[in-house]
Amino acid sequence: MPVKTIEWLQGKIRIIDQTQLPGQLNYLTIDCVGELADAIRNLRIRGAPAIGIAGAMGVALAAFQHGGDDKKRWIEKMFNTIHLLKETRPTAVNLFWALDRMESLMNSKKDESTETIRNRLLKEAISIFEEDKQICRQIGQNGATLIPEDATVLTHCNAGGLATADYGTALGVVYAAVELGKKVKVYVDETRPLLQGSRLTAWELKESGIDVTVICDSTAGFLMEQKKIDCILVGADRIAANGDVANKVGTYTLAVLAQKHHIPFYVVAPLSSFDFSIPSGDYIPIEERAGEEVVNGFKTKTAPEGVRVYNPAFDMTPHELVHAFVTEQKILYPPYTKSISDIFGKNSPK
Amino acid sequence: MPVKTIEWLQGKIRIIDQTQLPGQLNYLTIDCVGELADAIRNLRIRGAPAIGIAGAMGVALAAFQHGGDDKKRWIEKMFNTIHLLKETRPTAVNLFWALDRMESLMNSKKDESTETIRNRLLKEAISIFEEDKQICRQIGQNGATLIPEDATVLTHCNAGGLATADYGTALGVVYAAVELGKKVKVYVDETRPLLQGSRLTAWELKESGIDVTVICDSTAGFLMEQKKIDCILVGADRIAANGDVANKVGTYTLAVLAQKHHIPFYVVAPLSSFDFSIPSGDYIPIEERAGEEVVNGFKTKTAPEGVRVYNPAFDMTPHELVHAFVTEQKILYPPYTKSISDIFGKNSPK
Repeated sequence: MPVKTIEWLQGKIRIIDQTQLPGQLNYLTIDCVGELADAIRNLRIRGAPAIGIAGAMGVALAAFQHGGDDKKRWIEKMFNTIHLLKETRPTAVNLFWALDRMESLMNSKKDESTETIRNRLLKEAISIFEEDKQICRQIGQNGATLIPEDATVLTHCNAGGLATADYGTALGVVYAAVELGKKVKVYVDETRPLLQGSRLTAWELKESGIDVTVICDSTAGFLMEQKKIDCILVGADRIAANGDVANKVGTYTLAVLAQKHHIPFYVVAPLSSFDFSIPSGDYIPIEERAGEEVVNGFKTKTAPEGVRVYNPAFDMTPHELVHAFVTEQKILYPPYTKSISDIFGKNSPK
Repeated sequence: MPVKTIEWLQGKIRIIDQTQLPGQLNYLTIDCVGELADAIRNLRIRGAPAIGIAGAMGVALAAFQHGGDDKKRWIEKMFNTIHLLKETRPTAVNLFWALDRMESLMNSKKDESTETIRNRLLKEAISIFEEDKQICRQIGQNGATLIPEDATVLTHCNAGGLATADYGTALGVVYAAVELGKKVKVYVDETRPLLQGSRLTAWELKESGIDVTVICDSTAGFLMEQKKIDCILVGADRIAANGDVANKVGTYTLAVLAQKHHIPFYVVAPLSSFDFSIPSGDYIPIEERAGEEVVNGFKTKTAPEGVRVYNPAFDMTPHELVHAFVTEQKILYPPYTKSISDIFGKNSPK
């Protein structure tokens, strides 16, 4: 389902406040880059492609927000903005990819007038947004070929319309398969601690009339044991040159369970989620978030006062557990060092 | 930590209301068997050994609660009570084991006076309670031998003092190892949907001064991938004659992850958790609970209205994933068909 997760509207950025879903569909209009940085940090907007778009739009917002009379000072502020936005979340590479695009543009245009640069930055942000829409559709088409005519799919977290500019990556494959007339039933892990599965994925699938059932994360193994799952589709926050994948914590567990049960495990992501500069997952920083998200979520204290909590937001799935990557260009199969190198037209980093 | 999870006090049953932990340590005094049945259904008291004790004490309570002037009617009421209590929860076999003990006693004593039968039933219930205390200690002693001198242990749900009459099964092993001077650090899965791990296990370990860290269920795999776990200890709700184990949903996933990472996976349970009458886990009924527990827990709606939920309370771990069973008599190793047969002194059922 395409939802207006993020858009550029009358000089401001409008996002759906995803922390309020599924109870309320509230839009936030953001006219200051600091507020945008907070919204990214607090997951009001989340999902690797969507935060890439948000980052790019944030740079455009700052370009118009800051007065340009002192151009040197303005350029300095722009680079500071890019730096600020890069600091919001460490794992999803799309944010850095989008901000690097904006930074390159700044560097190449800095002799132009402030007004020209502003307009070029906005155009670039809008391009990133529009490209993502196309990418979702191409990913959907490519991935739908992998889905059986009558399939029960398991997914984790939210890699849907709420994570992108259009109808998502992993869920884009589901939507595209359904559009082709395939019968698809989806089980979704609720996805602790922030419940993106039950709050967001269940919401958007239900709104689209797709058969969806919520489970606890730890029920996924039992479903596979009962032979109820035909394939697993997940998104990605960063993919190394060898195919190791960082994605929402719990993804690795699903991949191990899939291997045990001989179930295809597909990672669905745009090429902007690949970080070709790093050889393996060992180099991907894994964001660790506040323990309060786990033991004091949703206004209820669920553990004794002061107890220690370990709350990594992501985990690492080694490439050998991935059956294929679905990208907008093509489906990549092992050996990934070769197939990923080929698509980037470069030799793998060491 | 021995906590007074359940006790017989002045003709009534006093339990800790575990739904109120860790926020409040409230005791409930129960003087009617219907109220006890509700408390078991609603998990105010839970844990396989503890609900066995509760069932037995419930029969004793009913024996005194019902007037005995019409003895035939009284005996009928007693059998109805046993039936009522057997209907409360289907998976943990200890409940049936304890109620069968009470039923056998009823059958063997029914020619005695009501007063004599009442006192014998109470004595039997107290015996089951006292035996469980001893069993916990013996299990602890046996299991502690498996724990390295400096160990990081992972556990799931609550198989501690709050699940037994004394200091638990899986956690009993931790307590016993610590008493032997071993250095033990525990990671506990929060255990969705009812959070027995973060609410109960973290509470009792913290009260006992044991180093405990709460994680989301789906973080366990990532911890193992990082080689941070030395062994896994879980309880059991029912163990078939071949060693297949029903335990809290998520247990199977941990066992698969343990196999992948070559980590010992130990099931810690009294012999009363073994159901020697059934050949395999295929015959164990798995309780399915209300979806509201998942999507409307802790007074917060966390999924869209009306979404379908699948909420099995338990799952099935096949015997080949279990490294050993720690019981009060001894540690059982594979092949389990033989080691379990030997301990029960019978041939395995077909």
